[in-house]
Amino acid sequence: MKKIINSPNEVVEEMIEGMVLADPDSLERVDGTTVVKRKDAPIRDKVGIVSGGGSGHEPAHAGYIGKGMLDAAVLGEVFTSPSVDQVFEGIKAVASDEGVLLVIKNYTGDVLNFEMAAEMAEAEGIQVEQVVVNDDVAVEDSSFTTGRRGIAGTVFVHKMAGAKAELGGTLKEVKAVAEKTIENVRSMGMAISPCSIPEAGKPSFTLEENEMEMGIGIHGEPGILRTDIAPAKDIATQLTEKILEDMSLEKGDEVVVMVNGLGATPEMELFIVNKTVQEMLKDRGINVHKTFVGEYMTALEMGGCSVTLLKVDEELKELLAVASDAPNFFVR
Amino acid sequence: MKKIINSPNEVVEEMIEGMVLADPDSLERVDGTTVVKRKDAPIRDKVGIVSGGGSGHEPAHAGYIGKGMLDAAVLGEVFTSPSVDQVFEGIKAVASDEGVLLVIKNYTGDVLNFEMAAEMAEAEGIQVEQVVVNDDVAVEDSSFTTGRRGIAGTVFVHKMAGAKAELGGTLKEVKAVAEKTIENVRSMGMAISPCSIPEAGKPSFTLEENEMEMGIGIHGEPGILRTDIAPAKDIATQLTEKILEDMSLEKGDEVVVMVNGLGATPEMELFIVNKTVQEMLKDRGINVHKTFVGEYMTALEMGGCSVTLLKVDEELKELLAVASDAPNFFVR
Repeated sequence: MKKIINSPNEVVEEMIEGMVLADPDSLERVDGTTVVKRKDAPIRDKVGIVSGGGSGHEPAHAGYIGKGMLDAAVLGEVFTSPSVDQVFEGIKAVASDEGVLLVIKNYTGDVLNFEMAAEMAEAEGIQVEQVVVNDDVAVEDSSFTTGRRGIAGTVFVHKMAGAKAELGGTLKEVKAVAEKTIENVRSMGMAISPCSIPEAGKPSFTLEENEMEMGIGIHGEPGILRTDIAPAKDIATQLTEKILEDMSLEKGDEVVVMVNGLGATPEMELFIVNKTVQEMLKDRGINVHKTFVGEYMTALEMGGCSVTLLKVDEELKELLAVASDAPNFFVR
Repeated sequence: MKKIINSPNEVVEEMIEGMVLADPDSLERVDGTTVVKRKDAPIRDKVGIVSGGGSGHEPAHAGYIGKGMLDAAVLGEVFTSPSVDQVFEGIKAVASDEGVLLVIKNYTGDVLNFEMAAEMAEAEGIQVEQVVVNDDVAVEDSSFTTGRRGIAGTVFVHKMAGAKAELGGTLKEVKAVAEKTIENVRSMGMAISPCSIPEAGKPSFTLEENEMEMGIGIHGEPGILRTDIAPAKDIATQLTEKILEDMSLEKGDEVVVMVNGLGATPEMELFIVNKTVQEMLKDRGINVHKTFVGEYMTALEMGGCSVTLLKVDEELKELLAVASDAPNFFVR
């Protein structure tokens, strides 16, 4: 396992330093913490949006900090929830009088620590609400998770909640938009090769030279099926069908599509997957409003991809179009 | 070698289809060609900017198509120059009365084919100028190349030339800006793991479990040194020192930095490399105007990174700030 790092137990610390040094005009680190925030937050009269979780999923979540998306991201160690204290620091760092919304991916550690931090913040007089994203249709209850896992669909929650906050929505309104997004978003992923946590120094799972795993989680949690690797068309079909089974989409409905790379997959392959996804939706009479192809939520250098569909109405389409300067989610 | 593809000899065709389906409002394919263009090109009274080359370097170059950057990209097979005819189609597709600038990476096949296509276009009355990017300081003369290779610095040439064209510059002015960018940009890369061309079905080179190669090209062309893998700090130092040796930078000069991933390298590691690059520049009294960390010019799923420095003056800083809607080069 080769990595371009200095010390396995310093990767998150050094990543944060390198990240803030890359954009010192817009980002700042809250001293002595693993919180990265908009330099200009808290923003007066705007609900603060905070997300975070284990590191190793970059650009999630710090790459979504910016006007119209997140105010802060709280970074844990690799694939490890940030502590209650760190989340508490993140909330305090961006809290305006309008309050703070926490966007949490559904992993037991994240949910516990973010909720406890919210209680601490409320005890200090900060209004806090939270939503839990559980878009992964692959499995119910997995390692680290009760219920469904939160994966790449989380980025749409950042976008919609961030846009609503940017437009001046109240905490209640911003939370409602985030919940609506969660209700309407579904994802599923698959892998052809594993990743290695720097401190572990070896792959978190193994796949034989001709194997793939459908429904795998972004930490390498077990999926639903391990088989011989299939053509891209079949992979895209299996992912999209499983997602569609779980959504109530009718002819004429509109969706936003994301084809997300897990870290080591060339963009070329993501576009090949997208071709089939688009053809399937067209065949079913489902209209595609916008499509995002790239790396939005990774698992270090895992090889594989995920597909996400978000059913949109006029409100969500308008929010998607709200200007943002978060560098990793560009809407043309 | 596992890949998420259907057929090894259909990857470019299917990628183009998946790419245009992802953004049908902004992109269109020129019928029967491997040219992807802005849907609204040719743009009246604006110099057209065309780039391209072998596929497998995504988002280069089609990901830079948009207002303020490229009008068209001509795609070759994987790591293979597009044919003269394809480049000719690309030029014709975006040619306005103001003419067309070709941005060519310095590989023998690309240079020959783009130059011959330019002659064909001129014979049809289209004004064409061209620039050749050769930013890679690692080696002189390599496989496929006489002189220095063109790598990630090419993206800055797209940006500067595209911005100047967007502002209404003449073909002569746009070319002058592209040449100025080329004169002031230097890059170098390294790899820790190889990539496989789909049709070949095996890695284009091998590196032992503990090896890295400094100065490698984006097609796996030989570099200058193969050694045991070093800490990120040493890798960043070697790349940056070699670049600085080749530039005449003085205390107080300003640069734009790019830390580019070659395909399989987690963004976390790119930020760790960036930390050292920034510290080195600070130590030397060189000011950093903007920094770009991410995947800008890849080599399929190669593991590794490159560092690029562009010396900027007021003109280049202003051009960098010109609005663009190319989805893969966002300036905050």
